[in-house]
Amino acid sequence: MDFNFNMPVELVFGTGIIRNNTGKFKLGQKALVVTGRNSAKLSGALNDVVFALDHEAIEYCIFDNVINNPTMENVAEGTAFGKKNKADFVIAIGGGSPMDAAKAIAALMTNDIDPIDLIGNIPTNKSLPLIAIPTTSGTGSEVTPYSVLTVPSMNTKKSFFSPSSFPVVAFADPSYTKSLTREITLDTAFDAFSHLLESYLSLKSTPLNDVVAIEGIKAFASCMKALADDEVDDRIRSLLMYASCLGGIAITHTGTTLIHAMGYSLTYFKGLSHGRANTMLMGEYLGFNMEHEPEKIQNVLDILGFKSIIEADDFFNLGTDEKPNLTVEEINMYTQLAMGQRNVKLNPRKVIAEDIKGMYQRIFGGAK
Amino acid sequence: MDFNFNMPVELVFGTGIIRNNTGKFKLGQKALVVTGRNSAKLSGALNDVVFALDHEAIEYCIFDNVINNPTMENVAEGTAFGKKNKADFVIAIGGGSPMDAAKAIAALMTNDIDPIDLIGNIPTNKSLPLIAIPTTSGTGSEVTPYSVLTVPSMNTKKSFFSPSSFPVVAFADPSYTKSLTREITLDTAFDAFSHLLESYLSLKSTPLNDVVAIEGIKAFASCMKALADDEVDDRIRSLLMYASCLGGIAITHTGTTLIHAMGYSLTYFKGLSHGRANTMLMGEYLGFNMEHEPEKIQNVLDILGFKSIIEADDFFNLGTDEKPNLTVEEINMYTQLAMGQRNVKLNPRKVIAEDIKGMYQRIFGGAK
Repeated sequence: MDFNFNMPVELVFGTGIIRNNTGKFKLGQKALVVTGRNSAKLSGALNDVVFALDHEAIEYCIFDNVINNPTMENVAEGTAFGKKNKADFVIAIGGGSPMDAAKAIAALMTNDIDPIDLIGNIPTNKSLPLIAIPTTSGTGSEVTPYSVLTVPSMNTKKSFFSPSSFPVVAFADPSYTKSLTREITLDTAFDAFSHLLESYLSLKSTPLNDVVAIEGIKAFASCMKALADDEVDDRIRSLLMYASCLGGIAITHTGTTLIHAMGYSLTYFKGLSHGRANTMLMGEYLGFNMEHEPEKIQNVLDILGFKSIIEADDFFNLGTDEKPNLTVEEINMYTQLAMGQRNVKLNPRKVIAEDIKGMYQRIFGGAK
Repeated sequence: MDFNFNMPVELVFGTGIIRNNTGKFKLGQKALVVTGRNSAKLSGALNDVVFALDHEAIEYCIFDNVINNPTMENVAEGTAFGKKNKADFVIAIGGGSPMDAAKAIAALMTNDIDPIDLIGNIPTNKSLPLIAIPTTSGTGSEVTPYSVLTVPSMNTKKSFFSPSSFPVVAFADPSYTKSLTREITLDTAFDAFSHLLESYLSLKSTPLNDVVAIEGIKAFASCMKALADDEVDDRIRSLLMYASCLGGIAITHTGTTLIHAMGYSLTYFKGLSHGRANTMLMGEYLGFNMEHEPEKIQNVLDILGFKSIIEADDFFNLGTDEKPNLTVEEINMYTQLAMGQRNVKLNPRKVIAEDIKGMYQRIFGGAK
């Protein structure tokens, strides 16, 4: 048995936790709050953060211009704003996009480099301290060091991380997900599930990490009926956020694998949400790996209560109206881009380009 | 669902990990190696550490004078030695005693206070960075911020901790436990089990921490036959160290409870090893709490394969020749000391002095 385990983020989970833990905000003199246009306000999270900062007499400035799937320009803009305001720590509020942007901004605030140079490199100086507050239950970004950014020059999304990109504290308050639409609740839940599944099946999986992933898969399983019936109440919201946090802890140790590598192009070119892109690939992914990890995949199917991968795939189409049709050229290009993602190498079954092409073809083929 | 989770220690687990990860020793210019008289040498751990430090061209000095159940004088001595040698980080090698002493020394190196003032206080300055290397599978101290010290002026053991007392890295190499006697293997395994059990039943237990504790209890369960038959091989040693690390992660979140509170006096006055003291109390502890946590205790009995608490108690007497007989005066004094430990309050069933007295009486009563 060989493994590493480390969860340096202080995860504080529960309803009302920010107002009850204002002292944990004392990470600096002036906070840069990084968020998108709406969710921080709608969820009530921004109000709670402002309460905490006022209570601790900490100054702050707000950059609320993070776009979905943030780009290099977007994080450069946030960094310039933070520097101008002389912020010395960062608070991210939102789904994956604001949290990922905030990690990049926290690194760029202390490293005078071009944002593109974050990709594949560990910056010289430590990032500014970061507090992460999720408003969706999906990304798990609040407990990971990863930041996924859109890189137009490379036609795809790429991730960066450094040891100092872990948030210092994550406040996971399930009540912030109350204002989400059914569509976002579903898409983000599927994203969390794909983290748990891919981590559990990753070549880097370990006994201890498997325990975390399985606990998350069980939590997700206990939400499936409510997701299908559109009856998501406080208890389910709490379980979904729990599953999401566990997914984040799990991929911190293993990274993601094939689903994420293949899903990026569907988001980048076709505008599918990240979770939805993942979920469309899940049936093929399970089928592709079944022979190599029969016990683990059977265990997942048993926990979810499915008799077969086909039954699972039906469930994961919940909320999908129609799948995009891809041309042969598109499939070839997406295949090449997926093969260029390093997480492909962690798939339990060795993946070659033909495999990926076949999967895209079976799911999305049909366009001329 | 409300919980906190945090495992800031980078746990590196496996055989041969120190020589394969020498870069992780670069925490300063000069290491103070803190260890006892024998185990670091016998286990081979000291050789590996010296190899790593030489490989990274890091200077070091060795304080190998930690006694069993280290006292205030003992940690003061280690601190003076470290200061004289101008060490700027600490490496602990050994069982609980060297690791606990090293945490105190790491704090005293940066805080000019009397060692007794560590108890119940969080020192002003951060401790020196610490690497912890266990040579037994029991204490879990390599992944906790706790340091248990013997305080003669208070006739007992007391724990101190601070957020900076977490080791930066823990190297858990099961091969270092090869040279242990059967007695120490058993006693330390029982200590690990009591951490897992007390954490699982603690009032501070959480869903995520329970998952860690249960995984550890399962690992311990798979070692029981080998422990009983004295057939501890490499696979079992690996599982025992895994259980021990999980016990450490578990009590980091919950602390220990009644068993530890009651066991300290048996070690302090009667010289019983820490694990052995715990194990003698385990049957009574389970019986005392059965009505309050029937599901959890039944779950533990099921995992261990016992039909009853009496059957479990028989197993936990493995290797115990005879239990000390306590006088009424001793029982009264031990009861008072146990009631003074803060971890008593975390027992699932509210504990009053009469309860503790009754338990001591039933197990150790009989002396005039």
